[in-house]
Amino acid sequence: MRCVKCPDKAVIELRRHHSPFCKPHFIEYFENQVERAVRRQGMLSPDDRIMVAVSGGKDSLTLWYVLNRMGYNTTGLHIHLGIGEYSDASYDATLAFAKQHDLEVTTVDLSKTYGMNVPDLSKALRRVACSGCGLSKRYIMNKEAHERGFDVVATGHNLDDEAATLMGNVLHWQMGYLARQAPVLEATTEKLVKKVKPLYTVTERETAAYALLHGIDYVEEECPNAFGAKSLLYKDALNRIELESPGAKHQFLLQFFENARPRLEVGADEHELRDCAICGQATTTEVCAFCRMWQQAKRRVEQKEERRQLREAEAAAPTT
Amino acid sequence: MRCVKCPDKAVIELRRHHSPFCKPHFIEYFENQVERAVRRQGMLSPDDRIMVAVSGGKDSLTLWYVLNRMGYNTTGLHIHLGIGEYSDASYDATLAFAKQHDLEVTTVDLSKTYGMNVPDLSKALRRVACSGCGLSKRYIMNKEAHERGFDVVATGHNLDDEAATLMGNVLHWQMGYLARQAPVLEATTEKLVKKVKPLYTVTERETAAYALLHGIDYVEEECPNAFGAKSLLYKDALNRIELESPGAKHQFLLQFFENARPRLEVGADEHELRDCAICGQATTTEVCAFCRMWQQAKRRVEQKEERRQLREAEAAAPTT
Repeated sequence: MRCVKCPDKAVIELRRHHSPFCKPHFIEYFENQVERAVRRQGMLSPDDRIMVAVSGGKDSLTLWYVLNRMGYNTTGLHIHLGIGEYSDASYDATLAFAKQHDLEVTTVDLSKTYGMNVPDLSKALRRVACSGCGLSKRYIMNKEAHERGFDVVATGHNLDDEAATLMGNVLHWQMGYLARQAPVLEATTEKLVKKVKPLYTVTERETAAYALLHGIDYVEEECPNAFGAKSLLYKDALNRIELESPGAKHQFLLQFFENARPRLEVGADEHELRDCAICGQATTTEVCAFCRMWQQAKRRVEQKEERRQLREAEAAAPTT
Repeated sequence: MRCVKCPDKAVIELRRHHSPFCKPHFIEYFENQVERAVRRQGMLSPDDRIMVAVSGGKDSLTLWYVLNRMGYNTTGLHIHLGIGEYSDASYDATLAFAKQHDLEVTTVDLSKTYGMNVPDLSKALRRVACSGCGLSKRYIMNKEAHERGFDVVATGHNLDDEAATLMGNVLHWQMGYLARQAPVLEATTEKLVKKVKPLYTVTERETAAYALLHGIDYVEEECPNAFGAKSLLYKDALNRIELESPGAKHQFLLQFFENARPRLEVGADEHELRDCAICGQATTTEVCAFCRMWQQAKRRVEQKEERRQLREAEAAAPTT
């Protein structure tokens, strides 16, 4: 199979574009997609200080690589979540990448900074790990970017991630989430940093291919908590549709942004923002969701410790 | 496994309701579902003259059976589509059911009344059979009901049908279709008869079980044109999601009607209705979509015949 743009042999075929590409033309295609998304959606300015959220996986490292190659001023932010070997490998991959490309990286260790890692937090809350993890990551990303004076936070969400999120929001008709799902979230207040998703028009497979062709050494294993997650179920359902209708995922997401979201935004609940009574970050409630969650987790750990001490004291007391 | 309502052995388990049912309690459940849908959505009145669109498949025969059992005044409408043996078997099943239950049935033969059956129409239009077929059925249902003075047309669309349609509309964000998808379409003008879908809260599987338990002798084969249809692809994707999240389909559809559609209706294009210049039925354009399609099909058949005659004449002419 020949490249659609030159007589060279194709290394990848993109069915949704009816196009086989050789290595240089695939790289050109991929970078054009990202550039176009950034330009059309007004994501980044040349003098923006950009904080790239880097997990160490293919999406975030590719994003960092591409933005750096495009000449943007980037700093990585890696949050060490403490999810066993997976997190250690993610940390190592991130630091190795930063060193190799001479890029700056800031790290936050969840356990050291906030007192618990993701598994402990999940255990204390008796909730699936993903909910506490997601909330913590979003909070920390914004807090670090704001406190360190960054103009924008960029995340590596790709087309498959965004389409799966949209599918979940649509299956439950989560009107609030639907009104807010977007490739760009502007800073509505000084404390909420602008968020952008420059990879939202490229697929997971395309991102993996780009990473591979550039020798980006990313962590291949999925987070162990993702197993059985609904997002994987939705990705799978969408992939079946995509298989018979190439381009379906892209159309689903893009048509949503163009046609549906503008209508769903109308009348969506507008909340007034104020400062969290504990941490001072922007929130719609007195105490922000992050502080409430961590307070609850810490209280539960303390209660457990108190019960343990009580049991020990009772066991040590002389029986009468 | 025991019935959730009595000590008898269950014949079916409905995972989405966490409920195994014995035969009488399943029948009670099913009929309650239909009754509730009819009542809550204001679908039918006791003195309505109801035209039930009957294909001869499980959904339409079950609908007819249930409505008749509930005491409604029903007449069947069967459209013979001329899709080979499938249509003949459907016609036979419909007439046998009507005879067995002493019900009245009106039949329209597409080929005799309009000059072409579905395969010929599809060939003339060079379009997939389903588009011409669906448009023709909707038109004929309304026309027959209106001309014969019926108050309402009832169709056998079940939860899976409606969820698959919704999925298709959502994947393409068809705002017009989304604004109009509903279990009840009120008569907006005198010429558009009210349409209702009393089975929209029961699944395909539940409908098949009900038909089986009542010995309803329906045509089991699918329409041969349905093979590869997008609706089957969407049903399949939804079934995978349902398997891991029982109740997902129901929630997807019901939440849409409750939360999303009211917002999508706002600002949806309102078209003024007028009489079709050819057939006089209600339409938004000068000539209605049905008449336009059939005109085109007939013109193409005539052109083909003219070309054939020309070729014959040329072949018969003496060579000079």
